[in-house]
Amino acid sequence: MKHDVPLIDRLLIVGVGLIGGSLARALKQAGMVGRVLGLSRTDRSIEAALELGVIDEAASDLGAAAAEADVIVLATPVRTMTRLWPQLNNALSDTAIVTDVGSVKGRVVDDARVALGSACARFVPAHPIAGTENSGVEASFAELFVDKQVILTPLEDNDPRAVDVVERMWTVCGARVSSMAVAEHDRLLAATSHLPHVVAYALVDYLASRPEAQELFELAAGGFYDFTRIASSDPTMWRDICLTNAAPLADVVRGFKDRLDILLGAIEGGDGGALEACFQRSKSARDAGLIKKGGKRDDG
Amino acid sequence: MKHDVPLIDRLLIVGVGLIGGSLARALKQAGMVGRVLGLSRTDRSIEAALELGVIDEAASDLGAAAAEADVIVLATPVRTMTRLWPQLNNALSDTAIVTDVGSVKGRVVDDARVALGSACARFVPAHPIAGTENSGVEASFAELFVDKQVILTPLEDNDPRAVDVVERMWTVCGARVSSMAVAEHDRLLAATSHLPHVVAYALVDYLASRPEAQELFELAAGGFYDFTRIASSDPTMWRDICLTNAAPLADVVRGFKDRLDILLGAIEGGDGGALEACFQRSKSARDAGLIKKGGKRDDG
Repeated sequence: MKHDVPLIDRLLIVGVGLIGGSLARALKQAGMVGRVLGLSRTDRSIEAALELGVIDEAASDLGAAAAEADVIVLATPVRTMTRLWPQLNNALSDTAIVTDVGSVKGRVVDDARVALGSACARFVPAHPIAGTENSGVEASFAELFVDKQVILTPLEDNDPRAVDVVERMWTVCGARVSSMAVAEHDRLLAATSHLPHVVAYALVDYLASRPEAQELFELAAGGFYDFTRIASSDPTMWRDICLTNAAPLADVVRGFKDRLDILLGAIEGGDGGALEACFQRSKSARDAGLIKKGGKRDDG
Repeated sequence: MKHDVPLIDRLLIVGVGLIGGSLARALKQAGMVGRVLGLSRTDRSIEAALELGVIDEAASDLGAAAAEADVIVLATPVRTMTRLWPQLNNALSDTAIVTDVGSVKGRVVDDARVALGSACARFVPAHPIAGTENSGVEASFAELFVDKQVILTPLEDNDPRAVDVVERMWTVCGARVSSMAVAEHDRLLAATSHLPHVVAYALVDYLASRPEAQELFELAAGGFYDFTRIASSDPTMWRDICLTNAAPLADVVRGFKDRLDILLGAIEGGDGGALEACFQRSKSARDAGLIKKGGKRDDG
């Protein structure tokens, strides 16, 4: 649906990749944005974004572009944001709203507080739980966020108007928006997202390091490539997630290792009862989770 | 394509589940089998197989059914086979060929040698690397093996005619058939298949055991459900695989844990270089493996 008055007049996307590019596409498609400015680390990326019509204009200076924007979305890896925040200091208009799409919220909020001071009232942290293992603006598409969850972690001193605009921005992209505290977000996402990525990366890297690696990858069935799909995710993005959510992530890695040790003991001890019980619990939990999410049992 | 003379006149499938049922369907569709007898642990399963037309006849006694069969396929969990082998002793005709579909070959061969004696010359161990996380004859389909690998681990004293029939049986199902030694099979599959299953089961069971499990499964994105798809596999089958391939499996579980410990150290030590290098190696190895397998980069 098109609207006569767009929600956002001038939008600045900093980091026009899979997420930033898909957000721009979705807002344009919904007629909810006037003009999209884009800023990326590489010329190649920003040229592709222009050619694909994902952005209308290439910005060259963050401060200058931010000064003209109504809404600024930081969509870079989390540690890149750390370098960007100081450039936003004093650059924002009095009404500009800032948000981000980082997978870790604690570090982003800490950085924003230092850089923005009282303007932090108009910074609304957000995390769209969406993505593919592909990266770059070429992989972006308007429907990426349809029926996906977006978690806001609003700050105590947030301007309600800013929270409302960010919430509506994601709602028009088709996402289901909810809120939670910053620390809770980082703790839960460490378990559901960051741990599986670390496990998948470790597994593929381990197999690739073995002398018979070539045979292994040739023998691997489709299940293996499904299982390790997330190990094809962007290494820089995931390095930053690991570094900026280290404590909650280390906690769940240890918990997972303990569970794996129990299974290893059962394998070596020939404890079929313990193995089957674990496998059955796991199958039941996953199947129930899928059903609850409205999915059917997937087959393929 | 239909053939005037089927490859197999009377086929006995012992364990008419996903794999056994799909094999029967594929051979029927190719016109390569005269009559299919089926034997299953439960009445419900064998009735479903009859109703679906996967088998032509329900067998009630393994020895009697085996005596009439030209080819006998054991398609039960591996440890169930251990109990079945003695019933095949002295029951086979002088020309009957026996094969199996087990994911572990060492244990199956050991059991067969004890039970069959010199008739082991007509036992050709096989492992179709195919499947879904669904189980049961209802999940079977004729195309399951198309373009999939089937590994034979022929025995030194195998009758060449028996090897030829089993190889042709899988080829007409659309599979790519290759051979390797028993021990090599079990070592390689421990890494490419058994380890990923154990890791996926351990991960889901760990998350399900946490107090906030319900929130975790609700928050989990599609990537998590893809990643853990194999944790919905049949618990009994996987218990048996773990128990019968314990030593090679324990070896790779330990290797994986060492790799995970390195990552954990990098996370806690803030070593971004080590994290990014691991993630990049992993991504490159997986992407290269996918390309080599003739797949494109998968997106979704």
